[in-house]
Amino acid sequence: MKTLADTGEDALIRRLVKNLPHDPDVLAGPGDDCAVVRAPERGRHLLLKTDTVVEGVHFTPETKPGLIGRKALARVVSDFAAMAAVPRHALVTLIAPSGTPLRRVEQLYLGLRAEAARHAVSIVGGETSRGPALIVTVSMTGEAPAGRWIPRNAARAGDLLLVTGRLGGSIRGRHLRFEPRLAEARWLARHLPVHAMMDLSDGLAKDLPRMAAAAGLGFEVEMQSLPRARGVTTEQAWGDGEDYELLLAVSPRVKPAALAAWRGAFPRLPLTRIGTLTRKPSTSLAPGGWDHFG
Amino acid sequence: MKTLADTGEDALIRRLVKNLPHDPDVLAGPGDDCAVVRAPERGRHLLLKTDTVVEGVHFTPETKPGLIGRKALARVVSDFAAMAAVPRHALVTLIAPSGTPLRRVEQLYLGLRAEAARHAVSIVGGETSRGPALIVTVSMTGEAPAGRWIPRNAARAGDLLLVTGRLGGSIRGRHLRFEPRLAEARWLARHLPVHAMMDLSDGLAKDLPRMAAAAGLGFEVEMQSLPRARGVTTEQAWGDGEDYELLLAVSPRVKPAALAAWRGAFPRLPLTRIGTLTRKPSTSLAPGGWDHFG
Repeated sequence: MKTLADTGEDALIRRLVKNLPHDPDVLAGPGDDCAVVRAPERGRHLLLKTDTVVEGVHFTPETKPGLIGRKALARVVSDFAAMAAVPRHALVTLIAPSGTPLRRVEQLYLGLRAEAARHAVSIVGGETSRGPALIVTVSMTGEAPAGRWIPRNAARAGDLLLVTGRLGGSIRGRHLRFEPRLAEARWLARHLPVHAMMDLSDGLAKDLPRMAAAAGLGFEVEMQSLPRARGVTTEQAWGDGEDYELLLAVSPRVKPAALAAWRGAFPRLPLTRIGTLTRKPSTSLAPGGWDHFG
Repeated sequence: MKTLADTGEDALIRRLVKNLPHDPDVLAGPGDDCAVVRAPERGRHLLLKTDTVVEGVHFTPETKPGLIGRKALARVVSDFAAMAAVPRHALVTLIAPSGTPLRRVEQLYLGLRAEAARHAVSIVGGETSRGPALIVTVSMTGEAPAGRWIPRNAARAGDLLLVTGRLGGSIRGRHLRFEPRLAEARWLARHLPVHAMMDLSDGLAKDLPRMAAAAGLGFEVEMQSLPRARGVTTEQAWGDGEDYELLLAVSPRVKPAALAAWRGAFPRLPLTRIGTLTRKPSTSLAPGGWDHFG
């Protein structure tokens, strides 16, 4: 079985980036010291995000490599969704032991490429290095009209808390196959008075306190209202990580017609009110959620 | 001794990004799902690069953490130098075992921040995860006027090969303390007929064949002319990696006055002619240089 050490770095990179599709805004792709792309047009801002998946933390040695690649890319797309932005160009850093089978890395990359294509993202460069475990870091640019991206920290007291989808139990498989809520986020930003938005990566129990604290607010959650994935408990819906659903703070003056329009636009994806942001900061955070060093 | 596990992810990030200096083009920095920055102005292109340093590959457990941070950032700046571009905004991904002392990571980050400040780069976000070793990935944006960046692949037969500085023996310490040739590269692109440029990260023996092959050319090197760092052999100057000097392909019609002006502008940094690019592709590459999976 051919390994990365047998293949060598240059041949590996040639194989991975062969026939990589590029949008016309890519002026120099893999193979130069930097990638060169056309900048966002006047009136649009540039958005930047990086994220990483580590063997033993975000996937196991048994995870199918195509799904590792898919997850590595989709996690970052989910962050652009959280800003109601459009992802554009990606850089991929691949760290792997020298003895890793070439085929495993190629399949991982095919998963990355397929997921990038689904979101019209171009992979424009990257880096490879040997290392003690398989680690994939994806850095991405995106863009949004100036003043039209949705921050995490601008929630207001009295805002309604909404979440998309169903929460909890992602570890059973959804953490590898989730759909970044890109179209949904842009729809919500256009049709609802959204003050703040984020994606749920570490679990509602950790991410909601972050959104509230960023605005100096507290929160009240009606635990029984949490939309639960099939077969999970309320505690799991509250504490489990890697839902990659959207959490929104929306003005209480949101029109019922807007919520009805959501059901028309996305009939299979629930949008659920789970609570309220309060003026009084929460003095102790609810336990649960995922700490990367815990 | 306080570790990352004792500190927790949110508190770690708060400590690392505290008082992070930002240029006025940064509209949202760490703490949101994505960073938001003003895009390059009309007529300028956006450049993207990512690079990574891995414990046991690019530094050892004994390396001073501030120097690890410095190297992680400077390597990427060196790639912007290689394009004659200006680096702007950086994202930092930090992977570390849970038992890593907090102080080690804080010192690493101080090294990163100091090196970023030296090159007027703003750190605008990043990511942390636990993992099997200390790994730092830096992704960076930069910009250059349209049509004014220097590619790697546009060398022409008959071009002179020039290198900045002195090569070899970087492993003794220079690989941690090198100076990215940012100002030098922009000077060279402005004053010399530079067709192609790259930075020497894997060693001349590996990087020169890459530059030649990218243009379908071969090369001839006068080995005795290689500018050697103090105490290194010609073989080391040829084969050692991590010089982070510039390799240039320059029109043979370069004016002697331009080379004399270089000596006036950068009196302490040699610019040495080491050979020529040839029409006939090299059929066998010279041995040496650094393969990341070898």
